[in-house]
Amino acid sequence: MKAVILGICKDAQVVDISHGIEKFDVRMGAFVLASTVPYFPKDMVYVAVVDPGVGTDRRPIVVETRRSLLVGPDNGLLMLAAEKESVKHVYEISNRAFMLPKVSKTFHGRDVFASVAAYLATGRVPSEVGPEINDYFIPRYAKPIVENDMLTGEVLHLDDFGNVITNISEKDLNRISAKEGVSLLVKLERKVLSLRYCSAYGEVDINELVAVIGGHGFLEIAVNQGNAARKLKAEAGMNVRIEKA
Amino acid sequence: MKAVILGICKDAQVVDISHGIEKFDVRMGAFVLASTVPYFPKDMVYVAVVDPGVGTDRRPIVVETRRSLLVGPDNGLLMLAAEKESVKHVYEISNRAFMLPKVSKTFHGRDVFASVAAYLATGRVPSEVGPEINDYFIPRYAKPIVENDMLTGEVLHLDDFGNVITNISEKDLNRISAKEGVSLLVKLERKVLSLRYCSAYGEVDINELVAVIGGHGFLEIAVNQGNAARKLKAEAGMNVRIEKA
Amino acid sequence: MKAVILGICKDAQVVDISHGIEKFDVRMGAFVLASTVPYFPKDMVYVAVVDPGVGTDRRPIVVETRRSLLVGPDNGLLMLAAEKESVKHVYEISNRAFMLPKVSKTFHGRDVFASVAAYLATGRVPSEVGPEINDYFIPRYAKPIVENDMLTGEVLHLDDFGNVITNISEKDLNRISAKEGVSLLVKLERKVLSLRYCSAYGEVDINELVAVIGGHGFLEIAVNQGNAARKLKAEAGMNVRIEKA
Repeated sequence: MKAVILGICKDAQVVDISHGIEKFDVRMGAFVLASTVPYFPKDMVYVAVVDPGVGTDRRPIVVETRRSLLVGPDNGLLMLAAEKESVKHVYEISNRAFMLPKVSKTFHGRDVFASVAAYLATGRVPSEVGPEINDYFIPRYAKPIVENDMLTGEVLHLDDFGNVITNISEKDLNRISAKEGVSLLVKLERKVLSLRYCSAYGEVDINELVAVIGGHGFLEIAVNQGNAARKLKAEAGMNVRIEKA
Repeated sequence: MKAVILGICKDAQVVDISHGIEKFDVRMGAFVLASTVPYFPKDMVYVAVVDPGVGTDRRPIVVETRRSLLVGPDNGLLMLAAEKESVKHVYEISNRAFMLPKVSKTFHGRDVFASVAAYLATGRVPSEVGPEINDYFIPRYAKPIVENDMLTGEVLHLDDFGNVITNISEKDLNRISAKEGVSLLVKLERKVLSLRYCSAYGEVDINELVAVIGGHGFLEIAVNQGNAARKLKAEAGMNVRIEKA
Repeated sequence: MKAVILGICKDAQVVDISHGIEKFDVRMGAFVLASTVPYFPKDMVYVAVVDPGVGTDRRPIVVETRRSLLVGPDNGLLMLAAEKESVKHVYEISNRAFMLPKVSKTFHGRDVFASVAAYLATGRVPSEVGPEINDYFIPRYAKPIVENDMLTGEVLHLDDFGNVITNISEKDLNRISAKEGVSLLVKLERKVLSLRYCSAYGEVDINELVAVIGGHGFLEIAVNQGNAARKLKAEAGMNVRIEKA
């Protein structure tokens, strides 16, 4: 992919975000992308590939937000990051002039996505890649819902320390007027937890559960010096509902 | 190695191809290099190190092809990629002025290869590194053989999905006039297989064997949604003979 | 971290040294940094993070040496590399203008260290980051001691081949006038070993112990074609004393 990018856009500065996403784990890829994108300058072109559907008819897309362009498969991977920056347009990639002359059935990362991203990095405009579409896929985890002062989201990822990372951001919590210091009523699937919303793990006793905004910007359920995922038998994709206690 | 390169050629743009080659697996390194090099622009300098012979008298070489310069040990690592681009000259590195002042016995990647590659990137010509040689090592896997309409090659690599990747390219298959759609008689060591040469795994039934050109440009023996390596007890280095059925 | 660096210093050339340090292994991080820094040109800015103390009151520092600037936690990580280049000044980072607007409790790599390093790369001077300090932490492994012609150091790291890498450099050995070819009396904790100080493993018989300066510039205790760490039950942090035999 880097070879293709440099072949098309010689002056591109290619920055690796991560090569550590588990095979086919689109949700984890979305989480890592959304944790990183806010720290880059604007007007970047991102290319992300976690693509179990390569070879099927899932569409290749370019997402234009208020700050960035994101290139990848239409399987939700790009949308958690894109929603944070407000989506302006989504285009389906169909213009063969933006792809390598020969497109393999198995490696669209190289033959389609890297190539399109490189052309965009040279200054070509996203509307050239193909028609605008509105029926692109928005996964449930890309958009927490607020209804009657209750936030509904899901578990994005369990990290190496056993922290249960949700798709709920500080901004989402503001929408139900939950500020640090308050108690939250958290439903993780059928488990009901009463958690203090703190600024650091250490603000509760050792082995106690706590809710904090992690370094990635999302609310996590953690145990001070312990493993929350194990304690709660949490899994990625589980439903999370939050209201002020 | 990157430190050395930037110390000698401040404006070099260093691109990582892979740090994931198994220790001492020269054949796998050759495969990854040959899969990548065709996608880079021309006039690149490649440095590749999989070097079980460091400390012995295996020679350090520079290979000049029609498109690129490749720097590394004379153990076959460079030749699969180089043969694809037509080898023009091979030089044995002996000029101390192209190496670090102190050459360790264990880390020629840094003290010899990175240093030579960086000097070449500054525009120094390859004939300066040392004498041209003709007795460089060409591994069997770098050059499939055609004889009486039979192609002879070998298994390069078994990938994570169990696909059996050979050193036979589409161009090689053209030499025996085998086009997609035909049936191939494939001998993998002593196993005789009759395979359809298709453009995608999905063109045969689930669990059926198929021959396809993979995303890396080499013929692979695969099982649609299955594991060909396990089914065929294949191993890297096995002999492969192919003729039209 | 790369996002933050490029956001502050658009023209920075970011080079990855390693992402393979074991979690919380400060000594291994110090070893890898000290093995690499001497090969880079001067006037580089290094940022290194192995930071078990994040969230506690361990200080963030900038070390100015005769060749480089190093940014990271005050836990010893930077000092093995810094001592090799002679430390000129150490500053405690306290100026908020050099950090991200919002500093998390868990990811100082991004919010403090990458940000400070990027500002230094733009040309800002290190004395701006905060007050100079003299009570910074110098781990025992950063400074081997010479007393009565005896060198005292410790085991830095056991590599994948079972070589026992110490913190003793060739320059340290010169201080007790030990040159290649002499015999060394080495005490590894309570084990007393008589070792030949050679330029390569192969200069002793197979399975025999030997002392060599490795590719990283440190003395290692090795077994020719064998595993010294296993043979000697060595562990990182063990005491090493060396005198001429």
